Amino acid sequence: MSTAWTSRYAQRAKGVKSSAIRELLKITQQPEVISFAGGLPASEVFPAARFQEACQRVLQTQTHLALQYGATEGYEPLREMIARHINRYGIQARPENVLITSGSQQALDLIGKLLINSGDKVLVEAPTYLGALQAFSVYGAEYIQVPSDNDGLQTEMLESPLRSGPKFMYVLPNFQNPGGTTLSEGRRHELVLLADRFGIPIIEDDPYGQLRYDGEHLTPLVVLDRENLRWDRGYSIGNVIYLSTFSKTLAPGLRLGWIVAPPEVISKLTQLKQGADLHTSTFGQMVAYEVARDGFLDEHVKLIRRVYRERRDAMLEALKAEFPSEVKWAHPQGGLFLWVTLPEGMDAQQLFAAAIQEHVAFVPGDSFYAPNGATEEGRRHMRLNFSASDPEKIREGIRRLGLAIRKQLDALRPLGPFPQYSP
Amino acid sequence: MSTAWTSRYAQRAKGVKSSAIRELLKITQQPEVISFAGGLPASEVFPAARFQEACQRVLQTQTHLALQYGATEGYEPLREMIARHINRYGIQARPENVLITSGSQQALDLIGKLLINSGDKVLVEAPTYLGALQAFSVYGAEYIQVPSDNDGLQTEMLESPLRSGPKFMYVLPNFQNPGGTTLSEGRRHELVLLADRFGIPIIEDDPYGQLRYDGEHLTPLVVLDRENLRWDRGYSIGNVIYLSTFSKTLAPGLRLGWIVAPPEVISKLTQLKQGADLHTSTFGQMVAYEVARDGFLDEHVKLIRRVYRERRDAMLEALKAEFPSEVKWAHPQGGLFLWVTLPEGMDAQQLFAAAIQEHVAFVPGDSFYAPNGATEEGRRHMRLNFSASDPEKIREGIRRLGLAIRKQLDALRPLGPFPQYSP
Repeated sequence: MSTAWTSRYAQRAKGVKSSAIRELLKITQQPEVISFAGGLPASEVFPAARFQEACQRVLQTQTHLALQYGATEGYEPLREMIARHINRYGIQARPENVLITSGSQQALDLIGKLLINSGDKVLVEAPTYLGALQAFSVYGAEYIQVPSDNDGLQTEMLESPLRSGPKFMYVLPNFQNPGGTTLSEGRRHELVLLADRFGIPIIEDDPYGQLRYDGEHLTPLVVLDRENLRWDRGYSIGNVIYLSTFSKTLAPGLRLGWIVAPPEVISKLTQLKQGADLHTSTFGQMVAYEVARDGFLDEHVKLIRRVYRERRDAMLEALKAEFPSEVKWAHPQGGLFLWVTLPEGMDAQQLFAAAIQEHVAFVPGDSFYAPNGATEEGRRHMRLNFSASDPEKIREGIRRLGLAIRKQLDALRPLGPFPQYSP
Repeated sequence: MSTAWTSRYAQRAKGVKSSAIRELLKITQQPEVISFAGGLPASEVFPAARFQEACQRVLQTQTHLALQYGATEGYEPLREMIARHINRYGIQARPENVLITSGSQQALDLIGKLLINSGDKVLVEAPTYLGALQAFSVYGAEYIQVPSDNDGLQTEMLESPLRSGPKFMYVLPNFQNPGGTTLSEGRRHELVLLADRFGIPIIEDDPYGQLRYDGEHLTPLVVLDRENLRWDRGYSIGNVIYLSTFSKTLAPGLRLGWIVAPPEVISKLTQLKQGADLHTSTFGQMVAYEVARDGFLDEHVKLIRRVYRERRDAMLEALKAEFPSEVKWAHPQGGLFLWVTLPEGMDAQQLFAAAIQEHVAFVPGDSFYAPNGATEEGRRHMRLNFSASDPEKIREGIRRLGLAIRKQLDALRPLGPFPQYSP
């Protein structure tokens, strides 16, 4: 039957590849490996007791609602809470602007389903979030990649790509995955103005926005966009669809994300979601609401920031101590990731194999570029996650990784390794 | 911005319509309305205490796992439990044959994503499950409809439709939604043989299989298919993909379903699921596992059968007492639905409007046919759900519905209503 099935699904599925990260994670799950490869939140920070209370409260008072079918749009008190919450950042949303999704990943899938017809171009940062490429590629997206630097997407290079007519732009302005970069204030304004001028919508993906460890919060694109609008309704969202999630602030295991968009877009996405999974777990939504309410989420995010800042700093210090001076890295102001540039001639895939020998893992950079993308460029990068390991493990892991890098560097030198001592 | 967005998503979204049921449900949620319209399980049967215990156990001992990212394929003990469970029905599956989905609806979406290219034909029963039509239509499916009778899909009418080359067949063999019919033993054999002969895969959707109130369990298509296979591996699944769910036996609010298929199909579907929502809620899967384990689910299904059988019988008796003799209905051996055929000339949509006046609701039959389908045929049917109302409500609701039908019938008679008495 294998052959029969293979030929049956060949057409649609031929573009379907298992993600590199997914395959890597299998290797890196061995207990002796210190893994900087995943993008996992620190599970020791999960608020277990609060979850227990929340489950009891939901099941003692609202079992009938919690275990029954629910509305596709999501649990109303949760939509209200999210709308209230994001209003603090200037996003003037109402509950009808909010669609609850099964994680941000589903938001990307629904947006792909709604907007992408086979062959449509999507403008993405290079590098960008692998999961977005996966979600969009299924619908036949082709990519226009615009490079980033330390200030994020290089908006001065956008005009010609925008002229070529992408269906939309996909941007992570805060502590980008994988680059760790944050789009500067000036570029945010430029981006929104350009998007408006060319009539190209922006998908603003903001999973990490609240996890800022230094500096000031920058205005979301969806808010800047509103300032350009002559809006005559009570809500503020125009050319930008804004995505976020509880995965990084509460718990990824719940699979709870959301889309903020104009009501007519929410309505279309809701219809697509209905065909995709009817609705997101009612029980999960109600538990998340009970956990997050009454200011708990804000307090909890402060704890996460404290823990992750310490881990980021531990990694930055270890990198300085353990890595050869030819290796460069960005200093992320938040998020979960650090992006490392290897010296010319080095290959992150080869380094990965060497690193596994030393029982340490990362994700080689070429995973984060679109298929038509800058593979040469990607080969010199690696993504390091600092949220999932405590400072001690981080120091030990970076020591091992430094060792692997030095060995590779030595092998690159025409005369072989420098002598360790001269007798 | 409304216009801009409308034109932007017009291409992909033009086929996206809100389902009739969805719209109806809004009307029927008024408290004075007795609704036979939904397909809701009886929420008073949800095992609340067992859920409370399960949540405590999961959160006390495995918080780190439960709230963290998990494998796309699903929680391993749950996959094992499902494989074990379905082996009782002769489905020789292993855990690697099982993919956990976010409800059966996601299974339909992933299958559409994998198999349907725009313009592909899908063979469905007429009538069939509305949600499947929604899921497949997004990918550009066109439909070949084959009528059912009291013994299910009329397999003797299949040859010519199969010759026209559908990509797959979508069939609900047990207590079909909406027809309530069960595919007979003989036709099951015929269907599997024909599918094999023409090389057309079958999607066997079995959400209600365990909810049988009379008669004997019939062999699933996936098992009959295996008997045709010269299989050289340890698993048995060939030409049939089998779907089921916890929505009708445990709780729909969890959004937990599963796909049983050959490993190479599971692998492709897993990759698509990764792009769609990464994975189904780890917490939800672990709670479901803890609830269902140690034989609890089996005992619970016995309780559900008892409650639903009583409700079905109450509805059948009420129909006999309250409906005019011109109205016909099938006697479902299980499931949640009863399919009613109205007398010639009557229109279920018009009856719906009249029924709402009497504070009783149902779903008009034309919702359950593909867009190119037998609308005339659909107009004479209505679907009644008997799981969500207790016997007393059922009797009162059917009384009201009988009243609405008699009024409509009277209006159809050329001489108007018969006199109630002759003075």
